[in-house]
Amino acid sequence: MPPSRIALLQSSGRPGDTVKNLEILAGAAREAAAGGAGLLVCPEMFLTGYAIGADVARLAEPADGPSAGAVSRIAAEHGIAVLYGYPERSGDGDARSDGAGDGAPVHNSARLVGPDGSPLADYRKTHLFGGFEREVFTPGDTPVVQADLGGLRVGIMICYDVEFPENVRAHALAGTDLLLVPTAQMHPFQFVAESLVPVRAFENQMYVAYVNRTGHEGAGADAFEFVGLSCLAGPDGLARARAGRGEELLFGDVDPDFLRASRAANPYLRDRRPDLYGALTRPRT
Amino acid sequence: MPPSRIALLQSSGRPGDTVKNLEILAGAAREAAAGGAGLLVCPEMFLTGYAIGADVARLAEPADGPSAGAVSRIAAEHGIAVLYGYPERSGDGDARSDGAGDGAPVHNSARLVGPDGSPLADYRKTHLFGGFEREVFTPGDTPVVQADLGGLRVGIMICYDVEFPENVRAHALAGTDLLLVPTAQMHPFQFVAESLVPVRAFENQMYVAYVNRTGHEGAGADAFEFVGLSCLAGPDGLARARAGRGEELLFGDVDPDFLRASRAANPYLRDRRPDLYGALTRPRT
Repeated sequence: MPPSRIALLQSSGRPGDTVKNLEILAGAAREAAAGGAGLLVCPEMFLTGYAIGADVARLAEPADGPSAGAVSRIAAEHGIAVLYGYPERSGDGDARSDGAGDGAPVHNSARLVGPDGSPLADYRKTHLFGGFEREVFTPGDTPVVQADLGGLRVGIMICYDVEFPENVRAHALAGTDLLLVPTAQMHPFQFVAESLVPVRAFENQMYVAYVNRTGHEGAGADAFEFVGLSCLAGPDGLARARAGRGEELLFGDVDPDFLRASRAANPYLRDRRPDLYGALTRPRT
Repeated sequence: MPPSRIALLQSSGRPGDTVKNLEILAGAAREAAAGGAGLLVCPEMFLTGYAIGADVARLAEPADGPSAGAVSRIAAEHGIAVLYGYPERSGDGDARSDGAGDGAPVHNSARLVGPDGSPLADYRKTHLFGGFEREVFTPGDTPVVQADLGGLRVGIMICYDVEFPENVRAHALAGTDLLLVPTAQMHPFQFVAESLVPVRAFENQMYVAYVNRTGHEGAGADAFEFVGLSCLAGPDGLARARAGRGEELLFGDVDPDFLRASRAANPYLRDRRPDLYGALTRPRT
């Protein structure tokens, strides 16, 4: 099977301006497709911005809202799959007890759209980070979300999720070949981008695409400095592509033959002893 | 609480010569104690060598055999705790079906001896690596073995064990502050020493002491090139001490106050969602 090229959009877009961010996404999809990529991965909360405070509730949309329609058209126009992060207003009427968010919970979500514009998978971040996220988002409860794309089994998680080895292991056990991780990783956590993500790829024998925001965003207690350093890490723990700190469209190749050979040489899944791991699922005391 | 200094003996000793290895251990204990260390950590299978083929069965001893007695005397003489790896012949009469090993199983084990010479903990490697180990060893079944030493909760695992995130997580959940990992890590797995071990320390918010053998050992199909690169990694993922490829006695400090502050800033254990990790304990299909 030939390698699959993917493109990583390291960008913060324009926080608070969904229309502008859809324009940026369209430009990146055009450039990614022209560069031979079959998939474009955008950062966490790309459609709206991340550090937008109370605007999260105002800008949140249903999974199949108007922005989803716009991304589907962009994907179909360029014949490229797109993974993007956004705040999702769930339509299930499960109102937050504090009355925030117009009575419906908001999730930190990501959607994968196929190259024909059809939705392939929807994921809601399960592990929320810090005070800002806990205040505005409701966590998802489905740890493993996957789709088949171009002969690869693709999985989705968001930012802090990947820092928990349990989450990535669950994907490996479910057969994920390529894990897509839109993120909003900030100073001082460069170690996560530089070291932890490649180790996740190695210990689980998969590719991991970690796609970050850049620069300063927000103000006051919710001011962040995003560190860039997006990467595509291979099952040998080496980066196939690595960004600096600024805005950048990166390309990297996922090689199914290399993945197969690497798994044969590093049989971590075969050598696990699940009978010894009971402590990991015990409720916190 | 003041920092605790530990010493890491990166050495292959003299494979096949237990008497000589006890001499080397005694010299290292003297030097470590003189350097202010309260604990000396030796590599996997230090007492006998690792790539010694069928000699494993001949040189294996019970956990409290004559070599254990010798190490206890060394520890007490210098007032320093010692962690050492060795092949353990279990006395429980549970004969291997293939008749190897004089009828009693042999484990790839490590013992921790206190600074007064008393045994504090015994661990048997639970995750055996590759054909050689599977042929000569019986795996242990106890994933978390700990002891209290100098105000720290110390845990033990061996080499391949640490490459499974599940094992180190179980230690974190059990409160391990300092994980001792004697190892026999070989080419081409430098990535484990350089990147995976520091990530384990970070994601679990503990110190990890990873102590390796060096150079070439063994012959034929069981010839190995050990890569050194021993380290003491802190909960920030940074190495407090890092060896090169050759024989070396390294020192590093474990700082309980830094560990406490780091855990408060990186609440991975608090933010886990064990209800979502059920896939990790399901039997292999």
